[in-house]
Amino acid sequence: MKENYFVKDTSLASRGEIQIKWVSKWMPVLDGLYHKFKGTGIFKNKKVALCIHLEAKTAYLALIIKKLGAEVWVTSSNPLSTKDEVAAALAKRGVHVYARHAASHDEYLSYIDTILKNKMDVAVDDGGDICEYLHENPKYGKNIKGICEETTTGVIRLKELEKKGKLRYSAIAVNDAKSKHLFDNRYGTGQSTWTAITQLTNMNIAGKCVVVIGYGWVGRGVAARAHGLGANVVVTEIDPWKALEATMDGYRVMPIKDASPLGDFFVTTTGESNVLRIEHMKKMKNGAFLSNAGHFDYEIDILKLKKYAKKCEVVRNEIEEYTMPEGKHIYVLARGGIINIAGGLGHPADIMDMSFSVQLGCLHFFLSSRNMEPKLYKVPEEIDRLVTYEKLRAERIVIDR
Amino acid sequence: MKENYFVKDTSLASRGEIQIKWVSKWMPVLDGLYHKFKGTGIFKNKKVALCIHLEAKTAYLALIIKKLGAEVWVTSSNPLSTKDEVAAALAKRGVHVYARHAASHDEYLSYIDTILKNKMDVAVDDGGDICEYLHENPKYGKNIKGICEETTTGVIRLKELEKKGKLRYSAIAVNDAKSKHLFDNRYGTGQSTWTAITQLTNMNIAGKCVVVIGYGWVGRGVAARAHGLGANVVVTEIDPWKALEATMDGYRVMPIKDASPLGDFFVTTTGESNVLRIEHMKKMKNGAFLSNAGHFDYEIDILKLKKYAKKCEVVRNEIEEYTMPEGKHIYVLARGGIINIAGGLGHPADIMDMSFSVQLGCLHFFLSSRNMEPKLYKVPEEIDRLVTYEKLRAERIVIDR
Amino acid sequence: MKENYFVKDTSLASRGEIQIKWVSKWMPVLDGLYHKFKGTGIFKNKKVALCIHLEAKTAYLALIIKKLGAEVWVTSSNPLSTKDEVAAALAKRGVHVYARHAASHDEYLSYIDTILKNKMDVAVDDGGDICEYLHENPKYGKNIKGICEETTTGVIRLKELEKKGKLRYSAIAVNDAKSKHLFDNRYGTGQSTWTAITQLTNMNIAGKCVVVIGYGWVGRGVAARAHGLGANVVVTEIDPWKALEATMDGYRVMPIKDASPLGDFFVTTTGESNVLRIEHMKKMKNGAFLSNAGHFDYEIDILKLKKYAKKCEVVRNEIEEYTMPEGKHIYVLARGGIINIAGGLGHPADIMDMSFSVQLGCLHFFLSSRNMEPKLYKVPEEIDRLVTYEKLRAERIVIDR
Amino acid sequence: MKENYFVKDTSLASRGEIQIKWVSKWMPVLDGLYHKFKGTGIFKNKKVALCIHLEAKTAYLALIIKKLGAEVWVTSSNPLSTKDEVAAALAKRGVHVYARHAASHDEYLSYIDTILKNKMDVAVDDGGDICEYLHENPKYGKNIKGICEETTTGVIRLKELEKKGKLRYSAIAVNDAKSKHLFDNRYGTGQSTWTAITQLTNMNIAGKCVVVIGYGWVGRGVAARAHGLGANVVVTEIDPWKALEATMDGYRVMPIKDASPLGDFFVTTTGESNVLRIEHMKKMKNGAFLSNAGHFDYEIDILKLKKYAKKCEVVRNEIEEYTMPEGKHIYVLARGGIINIAGGLGHPADIMDMSFSVQLGCLHFFLSSRNMEPKLYKVPEEIDRLVTYEKLRAERIVIDR
Repeated sequence: MKENYFVKDTSLASRGEIQIKWVSKWMPVLDGLYHKFKGTGIFKNKKVALCIHLEAKTAYLALIIKKLGAEVWVTSSNPLSTKDEVAAALAKRGVHVYARHAASHDEYLSYIDTILKNKMDVAVDDGGDICEYLHENPKYGKNIKGICEETTTGVIRLKELEKKGKLRYSAIAVNDAKSKHLFDNRYGTGQSTWTAITQLTNMNIAGKCVVVIGYGWVGRGVAARAHGLGANVVVTEIDPWKALEATMDGYRVMPIKDASPLGDFFVTTTGESNVLRIEHMKKMKNGAFLSNAGHFDYEIDILKLKKYAKKCEVVRNEIEEYTMPEGKHIYVLARGGIINIAGGLGHPADIMDMSFSVQLGCLHFFLSSRNMEPKLYKVPEEIDRLVTYEKLRAERIVIDR
Repeated sequence: MKENYFVKDTSLASRGEIQIKWVSKWMPVLDGLYHKFKGTGIFKNKKVALCIHLEAKTAYLALIIKKLGAEVWVTSSNPLSTKDEVAAALAKRGVHVYARHAASHDEYLSYIDTILKNKMDVAVDDGGDICEYLHENPKYGKNIKGICEETTTGVIRLKELEKKGKLRYSAIAVNDAKSKHLFDNRYGTGQSTWTAITQLTNMNIAGKCVVVIGYGWVGRGVAARAHGLGANVVVTEIDPWKALEATMDGYRVMPIKDASPLGDFFVTTTGESNVLRIEHMKKMKNGAFLSNAGHFDYEIDILKLKKYAKKCEVVRNEIEEYTMPEGKHIYVLARGGIINIAGGLGHPADIMDMSFSVQLGCLHFFLSSRNMEPKLYKVPEEIDRLVTYEKLRAERIVIDR
Repeated sequence: MKENYFVKDTSLASRGEIQIKWVSKWMPVLDGLYHKFKGTGIFKNKKVALCIHLEAKTAYLALIIKKLGAEVWVTSSNPLSTKDEVAAALAKRGVHVYARHAASHDEYLSYIDTILKNKMDVAVDDGGDICEYLHENPKYGKNIKGICEETTTGVIRLKELEKKGKLRYSAIAVNDAKSKHLFDNRYGTGQSTWTAITQLTNMNIAGKCVVVIGYGWVGRGVAARAHGLGANVVVTEIDPWKALEATMDGYRVMPIKDASPLGDFFVTTTGESNVLRIEHMKKMKNGAFLSNAGHFDYEIDILKLKKYAKKCEVVRNEIEEYTMPEGKHIYVLARGGIINIAGGLGHPADIMDMSFSVQLGCLHFFLSSRNMEPKLYKVPEEIDRLVTYEKLRAERIVIDR
Repeated sequence: MKENYFVKDTSLASRGEIQIKWVSKWMPVLDGLYHKFKGTGIFKNKKVALCIHLEAKTAYLALIIKKLGAEVWVTSSNPLSTKDEVAAALAKRGVHVYARHAASHDEYLSYIDTILKNKMDVAVDDGGDICEYLHENPKYGKNIKGICEETTTGVIRLKELEKKGKLRYSAIAVNDAKSKHLFDNRYGTGQSTWTAITQLTNMNIAGKCVVVIGYGWVGRGVAARAHGLGANVVVTEIDPWKALEATMDGYRVMPIKDASPLGDFFVTTTGESNVLRIEHMKKMKNGAFLSNAGHFDYEIDILKLKKYAKKCEVVRNEIEEYTMPEGKHIYVLARGGIINIAGGLGHPADIMDMSFSVQLGCLHFFLSSRNMEPKLYKVPEEIDRLVTYEKLRAERIVIDR
């Protein structure tokens, strides 16, 4: 077989290796599952596709799957988050990686096509693009035993397909595992959002007013860590129970329009589009910082801001300064992309360890199952339980009675 | 109609009135629902039974129902929590109250019998005794349109009946409403547990080691408030996800046997029996305090403690000092009964406001429904929503977009 | 010698005994100092006056001093905080106690006179009344070797005397010991203030707006515990550094006039008079609660409130409801007296253990010194150190390198 | 005048400009003082030396002084923290900067010599090197009106000189201003330490055990922020009062030797040498991280660690992995240098704004004073007050009564 990969520059491999090696030290749960699965031979010669943010932690998942005997085919679910050096390192290790930082949408689709025409057995999807492509090109999907979906968004797309009776493949809502959303979405995003913001801005958070938009799992984490840094936290939330919880957690709760003049830092966490709008920005203080910790880059209405502002200038790495007609400045971090990945290192390695272990468990589950119907499954309880027990073991936490 | 009540001493009524009047100032949600319902005439001449902890807040619920036009029949679900002065005040106001502090079990059953033979239309139950009595005496239940169950325990009993196909009445799991368990079980019990402990003991909590047994809603509240008082909190929990959450919330997690020598204060919150056992008590420090914030008084194995100890002495109101054979002392608060009620004032009034409003909403729902099947229902979403929206309004919290 | 005491009713002694016995279990530092001092014979036949809040913890200090061989003469520095049952218990144990709950000012002075004319050797003072009386009646003071002052207020009075060159006795500013003010004023008052407020009101604190007036040691403690209960805390403070610290601790800081419409609970902690004034009360929400955690009962301008209000009614133990002309209600707790003592149990026993141990150490220091000049001394470093080391030992905290 | 500067590469100036411009946006207090001072003409043609960490915030201070009319001469107090691009930008703006990243000690001394022989009028010192050089070369110091010392260490050196009667210049202990140490040492170091650690390691802090060594201002900040990230914090401290405060703040307190096996992260904050020693490292868990937030790089005994370890490898930027003979790994961050500067961006800009404003105020004070004696002065109260009032104004915090 010739070179079955496409990366920007293989000479970057050694730099990628250093990063992968580092995170591999902090992913003992994945190692634990590797040891459980290596005797089963289940992955032997199977073809596994991964379409997720391509950085060091993902790479380690890919290598573990390869070590279990599978052929691994990888692309990135978001070209902007692709690390070329990590892609290079994977290529060098014999993973079929097709990815390039800042690839165009057409390139991206060509990568997916290249991978899927090789007839995968199982796939990890992040947002639903693999799934969609397989529905549009059913000939590519005839070996597929299942798709493991990482995100809320992808799960929503799967549910719609299922409801319309159009779902042709078995799928698992990995995001909904307790081992994932209770930890990754809350503690992982909470911490890494603030590391990114403080590293990008060099600003003091203590005593600042932080407005957290949304009080779901991500919003709770972001609010808790802002509070832990000494911020005065304001929450906006339209769900009545969550709004009342936020109040009793000690935060002020109010509509965005009332919070707009108060905030020094705004963080969106809703998953919905255009929650922070131009009418809010007009009311903000000079010097307000806007950032997004939700999955998509559409929570802040940057298009309207660009039109409204007199000037937009990059004043520091991942900080754009918008000069408003009335003279004040507003700063947008990481262009409204997900702040902890686009402006930082992503989730901590030891948190992703759990999320990716659920993925590995679900891949194993599909490969060892027979005759599963084309429907959306929950993560099997025993996998969810296994992952958290392994984590407890790794952290030396004993919970016997 | 002659005197249709039985209380210890009607001359206590004025003292009870003061207490009811006080809490009534802080229950605006119940007032809001009263205003919503008073035009419907639904409660007119209906017979409503209440079998719950009989203190000031409950009394206000009874009076609201009466004001809506119903005949109200009340007894206490736990004779030890009955306040005679509150019972007297209710009697004076024309409520058919049958209750006496420290009534015997036979008396308690006679009260229930007296009430139920009057053929109630709906009932509020707290633990399931009304429901059981109606199943044993079906002739009493022929008018019953529904039973509203307040507690986890009662809900569990209902589920068992339903599973066996023996449930003969419609019932609602009031406890499971978000407006109730998210607030009452967490913030309500959390705060009132520590008010009771500090008031009973006059001890400083800052710097003490507090062991919280169980990390469900109640446990989280108890742990959060202990932490807020400056305690170093240890959590014991056998559910792996909850144990990991407790860890990432910053607490140490370990088995009870390892926590036993560390704790200055122990609080059980599991709902299970004998979680704090004699083998644990043997390992405790001299001067450890044991208390229970779960529903029943069987979480601490006091029977075995009594047998093991050389001496048991009441050394202060609601504090029993056990002298152990090895010479050390262990203190049990409120005889292991639910600390915030048996050793304090119960939940804050403005928290019970929500829980009792869900009850009122569900009574209204049953009385205005037709042909409901004998099964266990969820709290209707619109009631759950209404209660929280009324609370937000009362607290002047705006959540519009 | 005949009955050298005056108390309300000696038959209350057994109830007082129970209280003293309870707190004595939690004052190991005082016990430790007793054991250090009992061999010195320094207290033998000496006359010691105590003029402090007369409740169980003070009583234990008196008994320890008596056990060291001294004659102990006790009155209360504040007749409203006097517990008659504790006074009775002390009398029965042979302490010369002169005190009665709610004694008039003239009675109070007669008690002081009776004690001081017996020519004390040393005295514990709380606010400076003993000191003043001795300056006015120098014949009573000829044996006095020193006065130990407990409070900030008393220390201020001493400093003025010294500045004017009029101080005739040696005195120690016990309040300024690190073992006292770092712990008693912050953790002690912080916790006991909130136990008192929640016990008196039966209100939920989570989600409420708490306005803390002053951010000194007491204010910090009160704010920290309010925050720990889930309150949203607003601080008012006129010292610029403290105001900025409060901000960076995550609280909102603003003038009282701006905080007035926001607060659900107000707590004064400044030591200054009339900080919460009628112009503030006019702006408050219906249902606001006012309380004071500073030393004196003049921080809330109750006189003006009484004049302004249409009606004042006691609606519950230690709660006065003021009906304002505009129809709203304002609630004053413990009549503006120091909330944790006048409306609760005072500081935790294990905190007062440290403060009273400093007192005992300073009494011992005076009694064993010679030829001290009439000036205001600091607490000797070795006593301050001893007390905290004993506390660390009692709490089993090891701090060796 | 010819080129009166020495920097690595002037072509880096534009990159330095971007950084200086960014921080200048967040230093309004310095701007406020500039406006107060610009009319006085006090700085006109004066020679001002700065010997401090040379990065963007320092550069802005230098530029402000230049704008006030002075000649500014700059070197770095620590060649490892020198940013060549910032030095280049200063040179281009006409500041006499002599500095190069990683300059040798001899080079460093030659820079100081070059600057001081130009006969400065006032100097900002950081650690005391300028002061020492002036004492050794008195001819250079004849114009010196005063030295402003930034650090605890420098202040200690000054106190020793003064005690020995050898201090020849007037000096001010800038570090001791409330506007500095209450904020910079606590909130500034607290936050930036954790930004650095999480950015360097990509590790999750929630649920980890963090051992903070020392509970002074820096230790309190580091502990508070670790706690705010969800860590379980252990404090080691040998001062008894601080140890007890840490306990009552909810942390476990124990000797380092007992904390050694518990910690996932260790942070030294004592200012003393070799507090984390090889006997502690031997007891640590596999994977422990060591870092230092104190001023000097000698708190962790790295020399002994290097000798003891079988292998030392740089495994990631600013992370050294030591392989111990028993097989475990220990990770040292930033080679034991001050983690927030050597491994991060230093203090937040808006915190340094206060510290540098105190410096500017003290320089102005010296230049406008006459006949000051050669002794160590406190920061004048009015400067300390002015800086904090300006900060309150910048943050829109009102503290009027």
